[in-house]
Amino acid sequence: MNDSVQQKNKCKIIVDAMGGDYAPHNAVEGAILAAEANTNIDLYLAGQKESILQVLKEKNLQFDVNKIIHSSQVIEMGDAAATSLKTKPDSSIVVGCQYVKDKKADAFVSAGNTGAMMTASTLIMGRIPGVGRPTIGAEFPSTRGFCYLYDVGAGKDAKPQHLYEYAVMGVIYAKEMHGINNPSVGLLSMGEEESKGNEVTLATHKLLKNSELNFIGNVEGRDILNGPADVIICDGFVGNIILKFGESVPKLLKHLLQQTAKQSLIDKLKIGLSKGVLKKSLKSMDYQEHGGVPLLGVNGISIIGHGSSSSIAIKNMVFKAYQMFEHQLVNKIEKSLKNNLIK
Amino acid sequence: MNDSVQQKNKCKIIVDAMGGDYAPHNAVEGAILAAEANTNIDLYLAGQKESILQVLKEKNLQFDVNKIIHSSQVIEMGDAAATSLKTKPDSSIVVGCQYVKDKKADAFVSAGNTGAMMTASTLIMGRIPGVGRPTIGAEFPSTRGFCYLYDVGAGKDAKPQHLYEYAVMGVIYAKEMHGINNPSVGLLSMGEEESKGNEVTLATHKLLKNSELNFIGNVEGRDILNGPADVIICDGFVGNIILKFGESVPKLLKHLLQQTAKQSLIDKLKIGLSKGVLKKSLKSMDYQEHGGVPLLGVNGISIIGHGSSSSIAIKNMVFKAYQMFEHQLVNKIEKSLKNNLIK
Repeated sequence: MNDSVQQKNKCKIIVDAMGGDYAPHNAVEGAILAAEANTNIDLYLAGQKESILQVLKEKNLQFDVNKIIHSSQVIEMGDAAATSLKTKPDSSIVVGCQYVKDKKADAFVSAGNTGAMMTASTLIMGRIPGVGRPTIGAEFPSTRGFCYLYDVGAGKDAKPQHLYEYAVMGVIYAKEMHGINNPSVGLLSMGEEESKGNEVTLATHKLLKNSELNFIGNVEGRDILNGPADVIICDGFVGNIILKFGESVPKLLKHLLQQTAKQSLIDKLKIGLSKGVLKKSLKSMDYQEHGGVPLLGVNGISIIGHGSSSSIAIKNMVFKAYQMFEHQLVNKIEKSLKNNLIK
Repeated sequence: MNDSVQQKNKCKIIVDAMGGDYAPHNAVEGAILAAEANTNIDLYLAGQKESILQVLKEKNLQFDVNKIIHSSQVIEMGDAAATSLKTKPDSSIVVGCQYVKDKKADAFVSAGNTGAMMTASTLIMGRIPGVGRPTIGAEFPSTRGFCYLYDVGAGKDAKPQHLYEYAVMGVIYAKEMHGINNPSVGLLSMGEEESKGNEVTLATHKLLKNSELNFIGNVEGRDILNGPADVIICDGFVGNIILKFGESVPKLLKHLLQQTAKQSLIDKLKIGLSKGVLKKSLKSMDYQEHGGVPLLGVNGISIIGHGSSSSIAIKNMVFKAYQMFEHQLVNKIEKSLKNNLIK
């Protein structure tokens, strides 16, 4: 990376060229698509230089080779997160996070090993002062539009203070990135009454109730897809299970429709006819479309994508990183937690 | 109840005539439908005698009035579970559970206040020796047929031993009631690896691994609708949230289809055409169809139905109670836990 180049107002984004099942092809292509679409993005590619050059050649893509940050190692999808950081210090994930840590880049984007990305971002970039635990959210389609669930897997056995921090970060994200005014916050539990929930939920309820957040109380499982909260808070263990459950719904639907089709020719015809419409309607349940999620709470911008990310998904991840930069998400989270929104 | 009548081989089932949003009509009608269909059922109705007699008259139903167990009080749907047992000792729920406790009936079935039913069944019938906590399961449609999730709300903050007991009870239920040979058991977690999960899950994994159950290891959220386990175990807090999330999916689908229909007339026509097929396919996601769930682990048969149960649902609940009686579920659970399946 050419440090002498001063591009003050631009957002320096590093894309992990080696990240994802279809790397380096999709990663390189998606990254360049994003930079071409938004000239405020100062794009860098981290990874094995030779592989990147080959993709550029194959796909006939224009890219300044000085902006390739060569890293000799690759963290594979199956590598154990914690150990891979030690055994592969010259991997694109470690190098990318280090650049953000050193303020040589504003954001790092990767569709590589999720665990390694979370660990590297947290350990190398560090946490925003005031954040006990970073968090990853998921966007669920809902009858009101969308609902944002935190945490979906960055942590487990979260303490009430962690859940409170998730709420603060989730609210800032919803406000800044989605333009939601005064986002409402629900606490995921077994019943709407304040007295319903497990021990951690009961304690968290009190924290949220005494905060300056727009807390609307406990919400139930059904309220994710069809409820009053913009942001819903839960432990990462619960959120991860719900996210994966939700992702599997379209597959079950397909199966159920096939079973129905088997029983009657007319039904089969009807299902065949409506296939396209169904697909179109279910599009918002396809998490692939959303283009990666940020790890909120780390001291920098870290966007983690699905392993099977298409180049379009990579492009959207880069846009997301840019948007977070523009809205100064990291600063705003620090300020909100420092000012201690709790009354 | 006429105690002098000896009907040794029959199954004495009490149906809560006052239970459910459409009580006493649906409860009385559904109960009588069941008894008419299965003459091995010795049916009793618990509730306010006058109300029951009126329904019998209105609907022109034949029923031996000596089999009405009069109870003067009614636990309403909104009543607090614990206090209502004390303030309403002559309610149908308390009286029904007491009959089972006193061996004057084999089973009690109610679509009334779920919390009150769980509390009354647990406190009055008592727990099967060896059971630390009763559990309620849910049947999820899956690409393999069905998957049974325990616990979906009877407990929260469950200890590993409780989760192990849920597994034993769930396996016996799947085997006896659904004829599944050597049911496979999965532990719901954040990843398939043994090392993935929260503290309770990690400890439970060890218990299950060392048991004689057909334990296949951790499963993920996606495996409920599309995985290898017949029985999946989780804490009631998690299970309750997933159950309600799952129940809300059809509503979201309807909304998404409506949104698509708004955008194009052709799509609207296609959706209109396939409406019936969709409904048919989604039928297995309609939990109403399943006719109530047993509270496993209490020392007797207790079937709890949805408040909005139809008379068909009530009928199915009675059949379920009968089937549990026939398969001697309570004895089998006691025996399995006494023999300590853990190696």
